[in-house]
Amino acid sequence: MYDAINFSQKFSKFSDLWAPRVVGELNDYQLKLAKFKGEFVWHDHPETDEVFIVLKGEMSIDFRDGRVDLSEGEMFIVPKGVEHKPFAIEECHVMLIEPRGVVNTGDAGGELQAENDVWV
Amino acid sequence: MYDAINFSQKFSKFSDLWAPRVVGELNDYQLKLAKFKGEFVWHDHPETDEVFIVLKGEMSIDFRDGRVDLSEGEMFIVPKGVEHKPFAIEECHVMLIEPRGVVNTGDAGGELQAENDVWV
Repeated sequence: MYDAINFSQKFSKFSDLWAPRVVGELNDYQLKLAKFKGEFVWHDHPETDEVFIVLKGEMSIDFRDGRVDLSEGEMFIVPKGVEHKPFAIEECHVMLIEPRGVVNTGDAGGELQAENDVWV
Repeated sequence: MYDAINFSQKFSKFSDLWAPRVVGELNDYQLKLAKFKGEFVWHDHPETDEVFIVLKGEMSIDFRDGRVDLSEGEMFIVPKGVEHKPFAIEECHVMLIEPRGVVNTGDAGGELQAENDVWV
């Protein structure tokens, strides 16, 4: 009667990059899956921290003063207001967690700004 | 300069069951790791939903009217106020996400009630 949310199954249903898909809600927070490959844009989220959990592959997050490298089974929480730029050399599957309504590019906009609140 | 949070490394640092360890905070929410084996107690969290993500092994959650089975790479979000009883036949490694201050046994108490806000 109750079904698990299976990440591999969800990832198989979309292929566009840098376009987070919502898979569940925790109160007013959303858990999203995204595929990263290449370079994202510098941006920040002035109102909220942001969780990155790597489910498959490898990615990095550049900061103005350093970098964090993340592999499968690793996580990083970007503090609110901190400028960051995610990138991945090969396709990487990621879970993002943040409050409902957060736009992927923050205030930066641009062609990588994804439609918000798209479920898979 | 920035370090990833590595789940396997964190799990290697504790062995007690049903005793969540905080590994990070997202605003006023906490991300916790826990080892489950055996049966937990029936309880609910009247004020919040609760995320279960299976990182290794298998577990189930009993509800009064059904059950969900979860394997590695699967997630379930228990809605607030819904009675549930997690169990795992073999040791299972789990991530829990919920607001800071949530007690593992809800209002049920008992010997499996863990100290809160313990970091690893």
